[in-house]
Amino acid sequence: MHSKLLDQLIQSLRCLPGVGPKSAQRMALYLMERNRTGAALLSETITEALQRLGRCQQCRALTEEAVCRLCSNPNRDQSLLCIVGSPADMFAIEQAGSYNGMYFLLTGHLSPIDGIGPQEIGISELLTLLDSRPVQEVILANNPTVEGEATASYIAALLRDRELSVSRIAHGVPVGGELEFVDGGTLSHAFNGRLRLK
Amino acid sequence: MHSKLLDQLIQSLRCLPGVGPKSAQRMALYLMERNRTGAALLSETITEALQRLGRCQQCRALTEEAVCRLCSNPNRDQSLLCIVGSPADMFAIEQAGSYNGMYFLLTGHLSPIDGIGPQEIGISELLTLLDSRPVQEVILANNPTVEGEATASYIAALLRDRELSVSRIAHGVPVGGELEFVDGGTLSHAFNGRLRLK
Repeated sequence: MHSKLLDQLIQSLRCLPGVGPKSAQRMALYLMERNRTGAALLSETITEALQRLGRCQQCRALTEEAVCRLCSNPNRDQSLLCIVGSPADMFAIEQAGSYNGMYFLLTGHLSPIDGIGPQEIGISELLTLLDSRPVQEVILANNPTVEGEATASYIAALLRDRELSVSRIAHGVPVGGELEFVDGGTLSHAFNGRLRLK
Repeated sequence: MHSKLLDQLIQSLRCLPGVGPKSAQRMALYLMERNRTGAALLSETITEALQRLGRCQQCRALTEEAVCRLCSNPNRDQSLLCIVGSPADMFAIEQAGSYNGMYFLLTGHLSPIDGIGPQEIGISELLTLLDSRPVQEVILANNPTVEGEATASYIAALLRDRELSVSRIAHGVPVGGELEFVDGGTLSHAFNGRLRLK
């Protein structure tokens, strides 16, 4: 408005997900008026991350090293391999803290209509990894969406002849959720996947 | 988690206002996985803004020039001077689009308990500006908070002996608001400031 450069800053902040015009304006004013140290650090960190962040050779997660900290951790169980569709899913599983195996990151899910086939999401890299590592169980943690389910089924079929077990994470009623507000598909899954207690 | 640099990026994104751990993570992954061009542009723009954005010599708003685009616009009414407490307020007034005069930006409001006196918010710069410009009316658009009202009263008292009119923006019921949900203080203001129609 009164400064072209400030307008440019507001515009470039809008590339961040979930940031609209008002938030971008608030962020730009905050960075320039109140926290120039934070702004300088942010700019430097983004530049450094752009230069140095690549993919881990094993799990394909973002990392600045050849093999990420998680894959090179000797305390993790090498016999378990969890397959996820996005880095955010990997973060969520790690934050839950109950899984101690390895990961493999697909770049998305199969979606033939968008031209995304097995090569695009990294299936061949997955097979190479399985050939070279002592994996005994593959856990399919793809999203419970149509594409996620299709990808999980495809991988399960592909691994049928190998000597390893393949499992899918359980679908059901979320812990703390109320049955009344759970959708029909989830309830059907919860009934089909019921566990015998006695 | 699996990358120190990615953690640093998430941490530095948290300096933005309104960005918590989950949003910062989402932003970092988005910038690195999906929009490296946008990330590079953002980093460059922040650096450039840090180097070049200073204060307008007249209104003290953020600008990369000596005098901002608004102050150097010959179509604006030089006889009106609107005093605001923050750049965001100035943006809001400009976006409303009904005001065509000049601005002066105070750096906050008077708050003696926090050690913020007239010198800290730029009162002397305001007086210098009034001496050098053909201002006929000063419009006090400080926030309707305790500090904002105190600042407005202080400035009004300071300008009492000058040959210019001083006004305060109207307080009352917001347009589109319902009386039922308007607080008592605002309603009192709306009654005290009522306009005679006939």
